[in-house]
Amino acid sequence: MDDLGARAQGILDDNPDTQIEAFRRVRGETERLAAPLSPEDQCAQPMPEASPTKWHRAHTTWFFETFFLPRFDRDYRPFRADFGYLFNSYYESFGKRQPRPARGLLTRPSAAEVSEYRVHVDIAVERTLRRLKPAEREEARLVLDLGLSHEQQHQELILTDILDLFSRSPLRPAYRDDLSAPPPRPAPPLVWVERDGGIREVGHRGSGFAYDNEAPRHQVLLRDHRIASRCVTNREWQDFVADGGYRRPELWLADGWAAVQARDWEAPAYWYAGEDGRTWTMTLGGAQPLDPEAPVAHVSFYEADAYARWAGARLPTEHEWEVAAEDFPVTGNTAGSGWLRPRAAAGEGELLQLFGDVWEWTMSSYAPYPGFTPLAGAAGEYNGKFMCNQMVLRGGSCATPDGHIRHTYRNFFYPHDRWQFTGVRLANDA
Amino acid sequence: MDDLGARAQGILDDNPDTQIEAFRRVRGETERLAAPLSPEDQCAQPMPEASPTKWHRAHTTWFFETFFLPRFDRDYRPFRADFGYLFNSYYESFGKRQPRPARGLLTRPSAAEVSEYRVHVDIAVERTLRRLKPAEREEARLVLDLGLSHEQQHQELILTDILDLFSRSPLRPAYRDDLSAPPPRPAPPLVWVERDGGIREVGHRGSGFAYDNEAPRHQVLLRDHRIASRCVTNREWQDFVADGGYRRPELWLADGWAAVQARDWEAPAYWYAGEDGRTWTMTLGGAQPLDPEAPVAHVSFYEADAYARWAGARLPTEHEWEVAAEDFPVTGNTAGSGWLRPRAAAGEGELLQLFGDVWEWTMSSYAPYPGFTPLAGAAGEYNGKFMCNQMVLRGGSCATPDGHIRHTYRNFFYPHDRWQFTGVRLANDA
Amino acid sequence: MDDLGARAQGILDDNPDTQIEAFRRVRGETERLAAPLSPEDQCAQPMPEASPTKWHRAHTTWFFETFFLPRFDRDYRPFRADFGYLFNSYYESFGKRQPRPARGLLTRPSAAEVSEYRVHVDIAVERTLRRLKPAEREEARLVLDLGLSHEQQHQELILTDILDLFSRSPLRPAYRDDLSAPPPRPAPPLVWVERDGGIREVGHRGSGFAYDNEAPRHQVLLRDHRIASRCVTNREWQDFVADGGYRRPELWLADGWAAVQARDWEAPAYWYAGEDGRTWTMTLGGAQPLDPEAPVAHVSFYEADAYARWAGARLPTEHEWEVAAEDFPVTGNTAGSGWLRPRAAAGEGELLQLFGDVWEWTMSSYAPYPGFTPLAGAAGEYNGKFMCNQMVLRGGSCATPDGHIRHTYRNFFYPHDRWQFTGVRLANDA
Amino acid sequence: MDDLGARAQGILDDNPDTQIEAFRRVRGETERLAAPLSPEDQCAQPMPEASPTKWHRAHTTWFFETFFLPRFDRDYRPFRADFGYLFNSYYESFGKRQPRPARGLLTRPSAAEVSEYRVHVDIAVERTLRRLKPAEREEARLVLDLGLSHEQQHQELILTDILDLFSRSPLRPAYRDDLSAPPPRPAPPLVWVERDGGIREVGHRGSGFAYDNEAPRHQVLLRDHRIASRCVTNREWQDFVADGGYRRPELWLADGWAAVQARDWEAPAYWYAGEDGRTWTMTLGGAQPLDPEAPVAHVSFYEADAYARWAGARLPTEHEWEVAAEDFPVTGNTAGSGWLRPRAAAGEGELLQLFGDVWEWTMSSYAPYPGFTPLAGAAGEYNGKFMCNQMVLRGGSCATPDGHIRHTYRNFFYPHDRWQFTGVRLANDA
Repeated sequence: MDDLGARAQGILDDNPDTQIEAFRRVRGETERLAAPLSPEDQCAQPMPEASPTKWHRAHTTWFFETFFLPRFDRDYRPFRADFGYLFNSYYESFGKRQPRPARGLLTRPSAAEVSEYRVHVDIAVERTLRRLKPAEREEARLVLDLGLSHEQQHQELILTDILDLFSRSPLRPAYRDDLSAPPPRPAPPLVWVERDGGIREVGHRGSGFAYDNEAPRHQVLLRDHRIASRCVTNREWQDFVADGGYRRPELWLADGWAAVQARDWEAPAYWYAGEDGRTWTMTLGGAQPLDPEAPVAHVSFYEADAYARWAGARLPTEHEWEVAAEDFPVTGNTAGSGWLRPRAAAGEGELLQLFGDVWEWTMSSYAPYPGFTPLAGAAGEYNGKFMCNQMVLRGGSCATPDGHIRHTYRNFFYPHDRWQFTGVRLANDA
Repeated sequence: MDDLGARAQGILDDNPDTQIEAFRRVRGETERLAAPLSPEDQCAQPMPEASPTKWHRAHTTWFFETFFLPRFDRDYRPFRADFGYLFNSYYESFGKRQPRPARGLLTRPSAAEVSEYRVHVDIAVERTLRRLKPAEREEARLVLDLGLSHEQQHQELILTDILDLFSRSPLRPAYRDDLSAPPPRPAPPLVWVERDGGIREVGHRGSGFAYDNEAPRHQVLLRDHRIASRCVTNREWQDFVADGGYRRPELWLADGWAAVQARDWEAPAYWYAGEDGRTWTMTLGGAQPLDPEAPVAHVSFYEADAYARWAGARLPTEHEWEVAAEDFPVTGNTAGSGWLRPRAAAGEGELLQLFGDVWEWTMSSYAPYPGFTPLAGAAGEYNGKFMCNQMVLRGGSCATPDGHIRHTYRNFFYPHDRWQFTGVRLANDA
Repeated sequence: MDDLGARAQGILDDNPDTQIEAFRRVRGETERLAAPLSPEDQCAQPMPEASPTKWHRAHTTWFFETFFLPRFDRDYRPFRADFGYLFNSYYESFGKRQPRPARGLLTRPSAAEVSEYRVHVDIAVERTLRRLKPAEREEARLVLDLGLSHEQQHQELILTDILDLFSRSPLRPAYRDDLSAPPPRPAPPLVWVERDGGIREVGHRGSGFAYDNEAPRHQVLLRDHRIASRCVTNREWQDFVADGGYRRPELWLADGWAAVQARDWEAPAYWYAGEDGRTWTMTLGGAQPLDPEAPVAHVSFYEADAYARWAGARLPTEHEWEVAAEDFPVTGNTAGSGWLRPRAAAGEGELLQLFGDVWEWTMSSYAPYPGFTPLAGAAGEYNGKFMCNQMVLRGGSCATPDGHIRHTYRNFFYPHDRWQFTGVRLANDA
Repeated sequence: MDDLGARAQGILDDNPDTQIEAFRRVRGETERLAAPLSPEDQCAQPMPEASPTKWHRAHTTWFFETFFLPRFDRDYRPFRADFGYLFNSYYESFGKRQPRPARGLLTRPSAAEVSEYRVHVDIAVERTLRRLKPAEREEARLVLDLGLSHEQQHQELILTDILDLFSRSPLRPAYRDDLSAPPPRPAPPLVWVERDGGIREVGHRGSGFAYDNEAPRHQVLLRDHRIASRCVTNREWQDFVADGGYRRPELWLADGWAAVQARDWEAPAYWYAGEDGRTWTMTLGGAQPLDPEAPVAHVSFYEADAYARWAGARLPTEHEWEVAAEDFPVTGNTAGSGWLRPRAAAGEGELLQLFGDVWEWTMSSYAPYPGFTPLAGAAGEYNGKFMCNQMVLRGGSCATPDGHIRHTYRNFFYPHDRWQFTGVRLANDA
């Protein structure tokens, strides 16, 4: 990780008090997210791709115990030796680990013991931050940055994974009963924004924290194109469904059509026909009537691509998206807004809803930027080894922690994945 | 169920106080078994064949709510309408239900809510028992008998299912930390007991409760044969392993050999090589060194059959077993002994260990007795519909509740199942 | 195989000329069955359970090359060394072999080379038979018997496997275009024949050839019962379908109902709705309208069992069947009749259609007779190792070679198998 | 397909005689490739991805019958109505079709009938070409171009699919016994060729035939980079194996490592340890000792990527490859050389082996070029719908027909595919 400093400047300065405050804020947020959940809720695993809340809580702690503490506190002893096996996610460098599909069998340690684990590690990290030698400060800050960003990613996963779990319960329980629906408002008309091509720059500028996959900043060649002013809405998606969208193979990529048939897709994930004749959907506030003005969510890349073809358009490339977004502030309906569901676009400006609401599928395969080099050591497994078979998404969602994302932030999922808050912004050639 | 009385006399008399006492004893035992388990432990499902403790607790309650209360209390209202979907096991008569492999996703209702459910139904059952009209007494007693026997079966499953769950945890936790190993003792030598053939009778005599699959009592024709005085021990099984038992196809049924290869069987379930060079096994008291004198447990029918072939013997038929056992009292190392693991045989008499310790695989396919008629109504799904592809086991195990089994009791599992306490008694032709 | 003589007397006497005549007849019949098939037809494998015709032709030849020639002709050299790997079916004693599901990939040797192989072995067998020393005659006759019986079994499989293959072709080709439908005739009414119980004897008497699984002859205890005079017809089965037979779980064994749902069964195998509104079925003469008077074929044990339950009856035990059949000659619509499809029952006598037309599912699991000992050596793998998870069928079918079956003959298939000519005769308690 | 003319100029001029000559040459070549194969060889399907030779022969014929004949000969009647179902590959526009994994079950029509089908269609095409009206000539030439290019692709697949089939036979037969190994020669040392970056053009120029996926020609921005002078050799790959290449997860993409473990990869496809201690491999001339100087073949993208990481390099992008290749003639060890296996590089010039020998994996996901529009009508399913989850390969192989490929030619396979002649050329950043 030594070369991380060459291209990233942490958001945290070197003041231990400030660092500890940020550390506490992020770590505390994880616990606040878990608070509405019972021990059972925190333990179950709905599918191999989604993990139990308890596991997220422990894994993010293991991350500090593994990447931070041994480096800066030689006397640190792991809370329990076997937690390395239980809570390693995918780091081959650290050896064998609990198989991913079997995370739900980890009834022990209990949710309460995981709380103890978190406190133990939190105290150790804070103590270590106060005792750092000057020569260690920069490296420590970088690892801390990485650990907190990592934890924020898992905060989003806590929400999406619990939504998936609850969607499989016949009771369709609410993650939080106190979540109210946002006041209804109509989505503004979709406007096509013209964008000039040419040589542009994308990628992280090297100031402030960023993942290794956002670097190096480099030139790209864009063509003239158009991009939609907002995301596709549920109402628009219902038109696609009504027009036979899920029954017309000519609209689909071959692998997408195979997925439609193998998985019996007829609509976005979580939609179902209510007894009242309306379409309902599963939300973090339990089952709710679908808001036709809100952006569609829980669609796969295959569906996004088919919708775009149906609409005579295409998805944007990740570079088009990034260049279009660079003049807009990173604000929107992210988790801090408290709604925890996508809502209708609003606001001023040419391009709305770039950040928050739903992750926007792009047509770009997730691949290394030219000159990409992963972090040294085990942290190098963080991003690079997933650069195949996945597609890039941009912009964050209603479940993304405030302050987590950036203009250059690259998320990635398999083209069939649907359990994230994933939606669609259209683009087209000029 | 109306004709049940024609061939069974309940163990419970018609005195409401006695009935309520029995009801409380059995229902209370379920809760005592669940008490050492955390909410998480009670919720996880290790494999489709094994169910979560919480589910067992709720399903046995649903059984009374479904089969008993509506029949004798017209005003009874189900605790929650959707519990029928959640906690129906396999009764097609009652419609769709939670898919068996997804029982572990039922984080709601919580373990605490299930406790409330149990109390609610317990109160209703007791109240109903006190208010029965004389004409209802006999039928009510029969249903009560069935419900309590059913609950006892699930008590055994709570133990075997939690053992399976904990065997899959890298922590190998103990169900109960306070379980001590029984004092060591050597198994007595295996003696072959000669048994005469001829026409004999098997099946339930019609006095006291029995399942429908134990009736009707009928004649069978036995040949002269020999039966082993005790079950096969772990030490003897280790000889089989050492002699290449799991690597020699000529010892195995074709389907058994396919299972060995597909599942990589090299020893009974739960055995593993300890760091001390000894063989260890998973028990309800956590990981323990294997007791070589105790009967082997957690072997499939295929393994039992292969062992018998290796030993130049065969398994007994279920009729040979029943006739041999009929002069022995139904006592042994069942759950009431408190060990909760098989232990070395001991005692006087020709045949040892007939009851308790391990369920004994027989060579008999599970099939209807001549003239078998299932119970009327939904209760008819209890036994008959499983009469294919499974093998009969006899005698109960160390996890079987005291008082649950009978000489005529027929248990049944698939020939590949290993998570029950299943072992082997040899037999041979005369 | 040395003790085979103790309980079987070959159908072939010790005269080499007679033996060679029988050998040529059976071996020639295999080639006549293969004659209508192109090299491609002979090579393809429709599913793991069914083998290519070419493989059957070679495997039956390998059987003589392996079990007969090395024993009686020390100078015999295998035709090609690698054929042992290619054409061993399941004999673990002879080592590894071509995986069963991959038999269709054996494009080499060609059908023509297999013909050469057959001629090579035929010449060697005939030469050997003429040169036998007197002391070898009895054993040789027994092995010859076994080899010819084995070949006849594969003759039936050639027909059923090619029917399955052609049923999967959109062209629905005919195995033979010259097969005409038998003249129509109505099935006689179903009559219930009363049969007394008591101690009876079943199993091979020890005169004439039989497989090891038919021995030893032994006593069984039967109850009074009734048995249907003929098999269930297609018309009767259509009533079952029309009455929702495939949609009512209460009629099915649990494993059967799971099969219905997993395999989307709605009718017997090969039935389909013709464009003329009638039900058609696939036959060895190509697609044909269903004959409502003919016995239903291509039903699984699960379906047979469900039908019986729907009809208020049960299936016979294999012992009931054998005792009922013992006074009837072994004649019927077997392959020699030339129809190669089941046809309506006819004839005199209480019990019709016992032999030929369709194999009749019994309610008996395939298990060893008391005192069963498999043949010595590799031939012991012929029958015994399959004695689990399968059900016994009796009586032969329209594809069974004349002279192949006996009163005591036990066929066996898995309860879900449907590609054989398998049908149903009902029985009931008295 | 009307707009095809806008960007492609057929290789065939408008002279019917010339066209017919080209047609006969390509069609005849398919038959020459099939000639060494028996009817059985032509019928079997080794895996879902590979098709039987007979199917290739019929499908390419169906292509003309479907895309060409109905458009230019209104009186044309299909040879057989049901062939459309049998020999449609994946065109949803033409309705349902034989499931891909079941192509090997099509024993009918026979290889001989397929020959008749080919003759029938050939005659019709030739007659039609002679009778075209002037206004039809251009469109007809374009469709003819497409049909012949399509047929050439299947010629390559005939070779690779039969190699895969024969590799699964224990006999390891040779496709052609008369194929001799090329004279041995050492591979030249690997030299890194420096390449300047900048804005370049890639894609088809619009003169001569090309597939729709090669258009439109467009600018790309390249960085300075280096590219290897030749492909990686078997000897170099053996070093990778010896260095634990298949056992070190840090070298692999996550999905690649999962493939290594799930598929037990330890070396390229078809390699095996000979009895002589050497490494052998399967070729179209049967099993042969591995030529260490020849380029490695039958490696997946995952393996290519892991090898590059091990070597401190990366794969080229498809654009880097195309720009590097543009000054070199399209010549090399393609099928016309007659070796039908990769051989050691040789020749003059900076970059060797660009065309022929092995398809070279690039690091580029298969995606539409900016402004890509698929062909109109069913032909639009030819390329575009596969633009997800696959990787681009460049340069053709030893099995590619002469004259088939171009500088701009884009092949594509899934990252786990290995049965093509796929190899590796390294690149690196400057």
